[in-house]
Amino acid sequence: MPSEEVMKAAMQGYIDTFNGGNAEEVAALYAEDASVEDPVGSPLRRGRAQILAFYTHSIATGAKLSLDAPIRGSHANAAAMAFSARVGPITVRVIDVMTFDEAGKFTSMKAYFGPGDLLKG
Amino acid sequence: MPSEEVMKAAMQGYIDTFNGGNAEEVAALYAEDASVEDPVGSPLRRGRAQILAFYTHSIATGAKLSLDAPIRGSHANAAAMAFSARVGPITVRVIDVMTFDEAGKFTSMKAYFGPGDLLKG
Repeated sequence: MPSEEVMKAAMQGYIDTFNGGNAEEVAALYAEDASVEDPVGSPLRRGRAQILAFYTHSIATGAKLSLDAPIRGSHANAAAMAFSARVGPITVRVIDVMTFDEAGKFTSMKAYFGPGDLLKG
Repeated sequence: MPSEEVMKAAMQGYIDTFNGGNAEEVAALYAEDASVEDPVGSPLRRGRAQILAFYTHSIATGAKLSLDAPIRGSHANAAAMAFSARVGPITVRVIDVMTFDEAGKFTSMKAYFGPGDLLKG
């Protein structure tokens, strides 16, 4: 299991890499057979190809992410963070939960936000 | 599935009820066969009796909870929130993820925090 420090650094790396705008670099943070449920309640995307397609689309919206509170670790191979995604005039309040493999790659991501978490401004 | 508003009100109700100091009232927010993993990576507590014992202990520490960011919903029967628990001179930074039954009771709770999320002051 990766250390708490490694997991938190990977979560921060996700924010920074996403904001850097290279979808392939974001997809490379995931294990080959990882899954993404974004938002929770939507169909699962599984594997690097689907994950790359997802981030290619997400980054093309111009979204930028910023933490709302310090990243949380856990006593297992999981971490969580509250952040806001700003897309033009819209702010989306999100909590992401990631799980990790031994190499510190994401094996799953779940993004918690509902219709009421999209705000103007 | 309960509405996003109902789920968010239940999350806020959890904070308020915990701070009110009555463990039985907190346990009553859970479905009979619910599970609690607090912190994530610790043994699961399952059912009202174990959950009541857990909150009796937690509340006896004098812990008080306050949100660090607005509660997030989802597009499923789940919601998440980032908060801090203050216990004497210690602050614990936590993200809780709850799932819900039709009646709006919690069917599961997972609390994400690691050793590095306990801070003095």
